Amino acid sequence: MINHRGPEFAALLRSLVERIRPFFGSSGDILFFPAAGTGGLEAAVVNTLSPGDPVLAVTIGAFGDRFAQIAQVFGANVRRLEVEWGRACTPDMLRAALARWPDTKAVLLTHNETSTGVQQDLPALAAVVREHGALLLVDAISSLGAVPFDADGWGVDVVITGSQKAWMVPPGMTMLAVGPRAWEANSKAKMPRLYWDFVAMKRSMERGQTPYTPALSIMFALDAALERMHAEGMERIFARHARLARQTRDGLVALGIALFADPAYASNTVTAAWLPEGIEWRALSKLLREEYGVVIAGGQGKMEGRIFRIGHLGAVTDRDIAGVLRALRDALARLGYRPGTTTAHPRPQLALV
Amino acid sequence: MINHRGPEFAALLRSLVERIRPFFGSSGDILFFPAAGTGGLEAAVVNTLSPGDPVLAVTIGAFGDRFAQIAQVFGANVRRLEVEWGRACTPDMLRAALARWPDTKAVLLTHNETSTGVQQDLPALAAVVREHGALLLVDAISSLGAVPFDADGWGVDVVITGSQKAWMVPPGMTMLAVGPRAWEANSKAKMPRLYWDFVAMKRSMERGQTPYTPALSIMFALDAALERMHAEGMERIFARHARLARQTRDGLVALGIALFADPAYASNTVTAAWLPEGIEWRALSKLLREEYGVVIAGGQGKMEGRIFRIGHLGAVTDRDIAGVLRALRDALARLGYRPGTTTAHPRPQLALV
Repeated sequence: MINHRGPEFAALLRSLVERIRPFFGSSGDILFFPAAGTGGLEAAVVNTLSPGDPVLAVTIGAFGDRFAQIAQVFGANVRRLEVEWGRACTPDMLRAALARWPDTKAVLLTHNETSTGVQQDLPALAAVVREHGALLLVDAISSLGAVPFDADGWGVDVVITGSQKAWMVPPGMTMLAVGPRAWEANSKAKMPRLYWDFVAMKRSMERGQTPYTPALSIMFALDAALERMHAEGMERIFARHARLARQTRDGLVALGIALFADPAYASNTVTAAWLPEGIEWRALSKLLREEYGVVIAGGQGKMEGRIFRIGHLGAVTDRDIAGVLRALRDALARLGYRPGTTTAHPRPQLALV
Repeated sequence: MINHRGPEFAALLRSLVERIRPFFGSSGDILFFPAAGTGGLEAAVVNTLSPGDPVLAVTIGAFGDRFAQIAQVFGANVRRLEVEWGRACTPDMLRAALARWPDTKAVLLTHNETSTGVQQDLPALAAVVREHGALLLVDAISSLGAVPFDADGWGVDVVITGSQKAWMVPPGMTMLAVGPRAWEANSKAKMPRLYWDFVAMKRSMERGQTPYTPALSIMFALDAALERMHAEGMERIFARHARLARQTRDGLVALGIALFADPAYASNTVTAAWLPEGIEWRALSKLLREEYGVVIAGGQGKMEGRIFRIGHLGAVTDRDIAGVLRALRDALARLGYRPGTTTAHPRPQLALV
């Protein structure tokens, strides 16, 4: 560890901010909080809103629900635009919701919904919000760093990401970009805040410090990760993620497995698929973990036991994905699944690509 | 990293809770949040209080002020018992304050005030609070793990500590013990909370998980630290800290430097001392850092540039302290200070031990 009130830390902080900035596509303020990504979502809400503010929460899965819940807990007047899990919100749906609730002060959006493997068309959705004039807060926790993002160009006011996703760093730090409209809202926002206070963090970071002890070891790791990321190059990182996502989807379909997400909005960082009929989630995950050293994720919330998810973001290669698909094929066969068998699932029109 | 929704993590979490528990002296719930210690203070406040609740904040330095400020920001009716920096609150002072404000619902106390090097007599202060009946929330961030603590025996309702202090672990996790009276208060507490929600954290931890991604790498480090701490033994750890604190104070006095804290309440984890007259803080800290590899801390808040502080908690040995004192002696001499010179400071009656 180093003294977080000393000159080494000030230099590290400055360097991290400037090297992570291009991934946000933001000329605004970059703030780091020691917290999980959920803390970043809470920070975005309490720094820009007041109790009673009308908020439109677009929720397409478990993390959209969480974002909405935070706003509600802190007293916002939350209206929900709920989209069926596995699908994305379209510009028309968003336009209709804003027409129904024209007093909307802020829109909460999930860029990449980890629970369903859906990546929304953020430039198109942001354009609708900009037309309306509301503030736009975007959960980009599981997308930023892996896919292109242009906060300034698209008009996103607060962007939230988390250290353990595309950044390849242990969990424990959330990083945010805060634009000028968000600062304007911040000056009037009355939700209570101290730990998450944007103004205190900004003032302190401008002096090369933080208001309280920063997540130093996570910053050291981010320092190494950003070096690696800039060596690979942003465009190449984005292309690799797109390629690995395609490889994952194609591999699953070749095994006869039905994809969960609408193929038009399939995520480049995580793929969700239906569990084949007769395959039990616990048995599959145990077998993969114990005998193949492969850890995949189950379904969250209402999709628990019905879908499984493969993450492909950060330090992942083509060979990793091939290995996972091979392990999955073998494990499924041992559990009685025969490749090519048609799987039963309640929404074939989306799943069969 | 490991899957934080998998069986390895559940086993790690259980093991950390049970091995850290004896240091709290608590049979209550132990909760871990990915955050700095300030987050733990905020969690304690928002989980036990409602806006308008009368709160007595006992503040003896910068961290006591912060605890008070959190309660105020979230709408508590905060009354402050402010004690001169360098001194501790006495049971009589606390009794008088509670007699003046008999409607006090909760008392906020700092066990060890890092900004002044004062460790309060918590058993005596807790007894006064128990007599009165108010809830007792204690900031033990920079004491727990280094000095004896008995939450159950003393009657402390919420205890807060932080990973980067006595635990010898990188910053980024705050650990709390929550007792039965705090849970009772929690069921009625109306301050808004989601990230810090005790109930969600408790329920999730009971299933071997956390409501959102935990600070995994910090937990791995805590795992190693607790193994080391139990090998050394709690009593030996406490004795070592007492010895190192004495060695630090004796060494400073031998250099003719005046101690800042009331000697009756000198901290076992950090020692504050007056900067000798004519010695400039920035010059001293730069020289120590650059030429001796020694990092000491300056004063905080109103004591900036007037005092300096030496931390002696965690992985520190007698030899480390001797080295720091030698470096300090040499650096001070190079800056023109002569050992034995009487130093000018505004409060000699406390400083001359």
